[in-house]
Amino acid sequence: MNAPTLAEIREAHGRIRPHIHRTPVHTSALLDRQFGARLFFKCENLQKAGAFKSRGACNAVFSLADHEAIRGVATHSSGNHAAALARAAALRGIPAHVVMPTNSPAPKQRAVAGYGGKIILCEPTLPARETACARIMEETGASLVHPYNDLRVIAGQATAALELIEEVPDLDVLVSPVGGGGLLSGTALVGSLGAARIPVIGSEPAQADDAILSLREGRIVHKPANTIADGLRTSLGELTFPIIQSYVKEILPASEAAIVATMRTFLETTKLLIEPSAAVPLAAILEHVSKFAGKRVGVILSGGNVDLDQLPWTKLKG
Amino acid sequence: MNAPTLAEIREAHGRIRPHIHRTPVHTSALLDRQFGARLFFKCENLQKAGAFKSRGACNAVFSLADHEAIRGVATHSSGNHAAALARAAALRGIPAHVVMPTNSPAPKQRAVAGYGGKIILCEPTLPARETACARIMEETGASLVHPYNDLRVIAGQATAALELIEEVPDLDVLVSPVGGGGLLSGTALVGSLGAARIPVIGSEPAQADDAILSLREGRIVHKPANTIADGLRTSLGELTFPIIQSYVKEILPASEAAIVATMRTFLETTKLLIEPSAAVPLAAILEHVSKFAGKRVGVILSGGNVDLDQLPWTKLKG
Repeated sequence: MNAPTLAEIREAHGRIRPHIHRTPVHTSALLDRQFGARLFFKCENLQKAGAFKSRGACNAVFSLADHEAIRGVATHSSGNHAAALARAAALRGIPAHVVMPTNSPAPKQRAVAGYGGKIILCEPTLPARETACARIMEETGASLVHPYNDLRVIAGQATAALELIEEVPDLDVLVSPVGGGGLLSGTALVGSLGAARIPVIGSEPAQADDAILSLREGRIVHKPANTIADGLRTSLGELTFPIIQSYVKEILPASEAAIVATMRTFLETTKLLIEPSAAVPLAAILEHVSKFAGKRVGVILSGGNVDLDQLPWTKLKG
Repeated sequence: MNAPTLAEIREAHGRIRPHIHRTPVHTSALLDRQFGARLFFKCENLQKAGAFKSRGACNAVFSLADHEAIRGVATHSSGNHAAALARAAALRGIPAHVVMPTNSPAPKQRAVAGYGGKIILCEPTLPARETACARIMEETGASLVHPYNDLRVIAGQATAALELIEEVPDLDVLVSPVGGGGLLSGTALVGSLGAARIPVIGSEPAQADDAILSLREGRIVHKPANTIADGLRTSLGELTFPIIQSYVKEILPASEAAIVATMRTFLETTKLLIEPSAAVPLAAILEHVSKFAGKRVGVILSGGNVDLDQLPWTKLKG
C-alpha cells in the first residue's frame, strides 16, 4: 500500500511547524457529563485559515523543489483546501491557481482571494473542474495539490492526531470525520503506526455515507450527498481508501439533526465555533454513545469556517 | 477612598485560583490589521460559568468565615453574576439564594438552577428585587454578595487584568466594558497600582452612557438603558464610582451597530463566541481607532453567554 510512514509524518510536522498553529486541546466537564465519556477536542477550527487543511497544504507546498515551486501550485476545490493552499503558496511566495465552480459561495472566494490566490471560475461540474485545472497546469507548469488524494497532503493532515496524542497520550480511541479521506487516513496511520496503537473511528453524515458503503463493498462507492456538512460531500480517493480499509476500525453515521444539535451545543457550552463537518464526529459519538461510555476519546474538530448568515439552527426554525 | 489594595487583589487571586480558569490570551493577525493596533484578548468568555463574574463571586464566597458561610449567600441578579454565585456557593457546599425577576430569560434561570442555586422569583422592578433579597437574608441569615458594589467582588474581578499583564507585561493601554463598574474599577486598580502604570479606558454602549455622564457630572447618574449589551444596563455603585473617577482615564461610547458588527466579526475571525457586552470594548476601539493606532491594547472580553436563538445579526436582518 502506498502510504506515508510514521517517519514521513514526523518529517512533515517539522516542515510545517513554522507555518501552522499548534492548536489547543479543549475539554469540557459539562460535555463529558452529557456524553458519558472523557472528550479531548483537537481544535483545528482554531488552525490557520480555519481548518486542518492548512497542514496538508503547507506540507505539499514546502515539499516542492525550488524549480517546481517557482511555477506555482494548482487545485480545484470550493472549500477549505482552496484557502489553505492559497495561504501556503503565499507563504512560499509562489502563485496558487484555484479552480472554483461559479456557484461557490462568495465568502469562500473572498478567502482564497484574500490570501492572494488566483481564482479560475468554471461550470459547477466535476469534468469542468478537472478540465480547467488540467488546462491551467499545462499553461503555467503549476504542480497539482489535490485536496486529499496526495501522500504529502495525507502526511500533513496526520500531524493533527500526532500533536493530540503527544499532548494526551493515553487515549482509548480517536474519532475524525471523513470526506475525501485525507484527515481520516492520516489519523488512522498515526493511531496504528505509533507505539500506542489507538483504534481510529471515522464518522460521516448518514446522508453522505459513501465511505461506510465503500468499506462494506470493498470498492470506492460514489453516491449523491445531501448534507449540511459541506466538507464531507466528496468520495474517497484511490490513495485514501486502501489506508482506511487497512487501518480504520469502523465508520459511524451521524444524522443531520444530530450534526446541527451538536454544533449548537458545542458553541453554547465551549464558546467555540465549529463548522457542520467538524460537528459530525461529536454527533456520531452522541448517536452511538454506548460505544464510547467511560472512554477517553480524542476528537478531531476539523474546522470552523461557517457562514454566520446561514447558521443551521436559525434556518431550521425559520 | 474605599478600595482593595494591590496586595488584597493578589490575595484574592491566590484564594480563587483553584476554582477558576486561568483563561487564555488570544491574538489575531487579521483583527490587528483591521484595527491598526496589536490586540491582546483576555478570554473571560472561556471562564467558568462563561464570564469574569466567577472571579468576584468565588472571592466573596471563599472570603466568608465558616460561621457566616454556613448560612449561605444571597444576591439579586438576572445575569452572569447569579450563575457565578450559585456555582461558587456549590463549590463551598453552601446555599445560594438568587432573587430573579419573573421576566428573566429561561436559559439564565436554568444556569442558576443547574449550579444548584435556589431561585426566588419577584416582580421585575428594583424595589421588588431589593425587598425580596432583604427578606430572604432575614429569613436565612445569608450574606449579601452584591454583583459589583462589594470590595471582595471588585478585588476578584481585578484578577483578570492581573493575569493579563502578567502574561503580556508591556501593554500600552487596557480596555474593559463598564456596567455596574466591578470589572472596570478592578482593572483600573491593577493598571494604576502596579509597577507598570498602564492607562485604563472604559467602554459602554452609547445608548447606556450613564458612566460617561457620571464622570462628567461628578455624581452617579441613573438613566434608562436601551442596549443589546444586557450586562451593561446597570448604573455605577457607591464603591465603584470613586475608584473609576480616580483611576480611569476615560470612558468611550460604542454604537449598537458597532457592537453587533464586532461581535460577529470576532466570532467569524477567531471562532470565539462573545456576548454583546464583551464586544463593547472592541466596538469602542473600532469607533475611536486613532486613539489606539499602533498601540499594544489589552482587551478584557467579559463573557460568552449568548442566547443562540437570538443572535443579533440574524435579528437585525429579519
